[in-house]
Amino acid sequence: MAYLSTMASMRPVAVTMGDPAGIGGEISLRAWQALRKGPQCFVVLDDPDRLAELARTINCDVRLRVVDRAAAAARVFREALPVLPVRLAVPAVPGRPDKANARGVIASIERATDLALHGVVGGVVTNPINKAALYDAGFEYPGHTEFLAALTGVPGKEIMMLASPSLRVVPVTVHVSLRDALATLTTEKIVATARTTDAALRRDFGIAQPRLAVSGLNPHAGEQGALGKEEELIIAPAITALRAAGVDVSGPWPPDTMFTTASRTRYDAAICMYHDQALIPLKTLDMDHGVNVTLGLPIIRTSPDHGTAYDIAGKGIASPTSLIAAIELAVTLAERRAQ
Amino acid sequence: MAYLSTMASMRPVAVTMGDPAGIGGEISLRAWQALRKGPQCFVVLDDPDRLAELARTINCDVRLRVVDRAAAAARVFREALPVLPVRLAVPAVPGRPDKANARGVIASIERATDLALHGVVGGVVTNPINKAALYDAGFEYPGHTEFLAALTGVPGKEIMMLASPSLRVVPVTVHVSLRDALATLTTEKIVATARTTDAALRRDFGIAQPRLAVSGLNPHAGEQGALGKEEELIIAPAITALRAAGVDVSGPWPPDTMFTTASRTRYDAAICMYHDQALIPLKTLDMDHGVNVTLGLPIIRTSPDHGTAYDIAGKGIASPTSLIAAIELAVTLAERRAQ
Repeated sequence: MAYLSTMASMRPVAVTMGDPAGIGGEISLRAWQALRKGPQCFVVLDDPDRLAELARTINCDVRLRVVDRAAAAARVFREALPVLPVRLAVPAVPGRPDKANARGVIASIERATDLALHGVVGGVVTNPINKAALYDAGFEYPGHTEFLAALTGVPGKEIMMLASPSLRVVPVTVHVSLRDALATLTTEKIVATARTTDAALRRDFGIAQPRLAVSGLNPHAGEQGALGKEEELIIAPAITALRAAGVDVSGPWPPDTMFTTASRTRYDAAICMYHDQALIPLKTLDMDHGVNVTLGLPIIRTSPDHGTAYDIAGKGIASPTSLIAAIELAVTLAERRAQ
Repeated sequence: MAYLSTMASMRPVAVTMGDPAGIGGEISLRAWQALRKGPQCFVVLDDPDRLAELARTINCDVRLRVVDRAAAAARVFREALPVLPVRLAVPAVPGRPDKANARGVIASIERATDLALHGVVGGVVTNPINKAALYDAGFEYPGHTEFLAALTGVPGKEIMMLASPSLRVVPVTVHVSLRDALATLTTEKIVATARTTDAALRRDFGIAQPRLAVSGLNPHAGEQGALGKEEELIIAPAITALRAAGVDVSGPWPPDTMFTTASRTRYDAAICMYHDQALIPLKTLDMDHGVNVTLGLPIIRTSPDHGTAYDIAGKGIASPTSLIAAIELAVTLAERRAQ
């Protein structure tokens, strides 16, 4: 009974709908089945009718409970998946995104963020969206993360971390072409990314003395300038500045050997120069267990490390593994921040 | 006895000295200890006096046998490490490269290559060199591989494959800065790299119908042009040309998901756009078991996937794992080619 009362007093995390034509709904149902008996607790911001229909379609034995406030989630969580209703304009068809539902998708994110800003939920876990389906409804952000940064009043401060059981990586440049990554990499960005990462590891990840490893950009980290000058001109000055600011940082490391089993024991997060330098090792090691964590926001936000997966939506075969990991991590981070 | 006679009739592979201040000598000694009872057979082209001294220094119980021709190696291999003598000008000091020995280092490579060109040995396995220590002796190549291509009469045709138990990768651009990789990537290079790889997989790796996966260059393989145009302008035309030439090729794939366990089952080799895109996944998965294979040469050539490691040379702690894998692979490839 002690356990149940702890549970009843626990703040849930909010799980957004994501694109209702994608796999978000079904993996949320599966995540509840997997987590209902555990210490985590979450509430989905979704359309209860479409979830009920989806549960029937994929033959998933889930009870739903409509709640009028997030705080009620903990009391019902062991018996039913709590749903804070966000109604869709038209029925969702798996695999077929519909612009008519864009407002609902956006409202789910806005409401979850608002609950987190007010401390009613411990954090936000976002199911995947499809930006293209949202543009007509006035969505004007390059992605989910930038939208959350704007909603929480810190546009431009968002930093993407990918975390898995084997590795945490933080790319300095993210969703730009490789050419633009080279053109826009600066000492200042490396410093800002590493400082935000250092602060998050201390505050939310419970690491008292975080060790950061900074990658080189070029093969062999430039081989003393023979294979590129960015290490010397851009990266080394960032490392100097970070050390001066008290950050425990090493590098620039040759990119190809910094993710081996032995190398990974030497740091808590790798600061990487571009998207694939960070994501290739993470996904190669842990395809299904990667969680996207947005650092630099005033709220906790995680998301599964995959997209809408229209091709398999509604078939009941989508894996909830990454969403489950995202919920578990959001709960852990929220508890640490609350301490 | 049947086994022994097979052994006695087998062509050895030639293992070069590499930089005598590096770990080449000691890992060759260890490789003999590991392989002497197996079906492989190799001969080292090295200075027998320095090897004997090194064996004493690291307390390694290896008998050496000076042979005057490579063909004699098989007969002695189970009892002693056969050495085709290549004398050094001055004693080698571990960790301290000496330009006075440059001629010996180069002679070892030249002689091994010559033996392979004449079919006396099945292939060449090269221990790591340090180019900087060779320049004064007239070595004018960007690396080992380019030197071998020149020696075998096919300059510019060399293609680097890294092979491990989990993955084979072939970078289209190699030892250039990331900026230069972008500037020099062409459809023609991708086609040439993939065709050489296809031919080698058929002839030497025993794969009747090789399947090649071609990576994208940009995050998400460019996301239909939103994150870069190279997929559309450079890579897709290469795939079209390769298909027209009868090569079984797929792509361009998003780089971050093409090396997962599931993805790797779908191809025999990954054609990658730049050094770290290829080497990060390979080394992350298999740091110690990677073998460098040079494709496009008239001879078989492999090498361990590491450098001279001056910092640990002469201490007896260097791992022979990659050299052993390189020797084993060279033997396998040589047998296939001879069939």
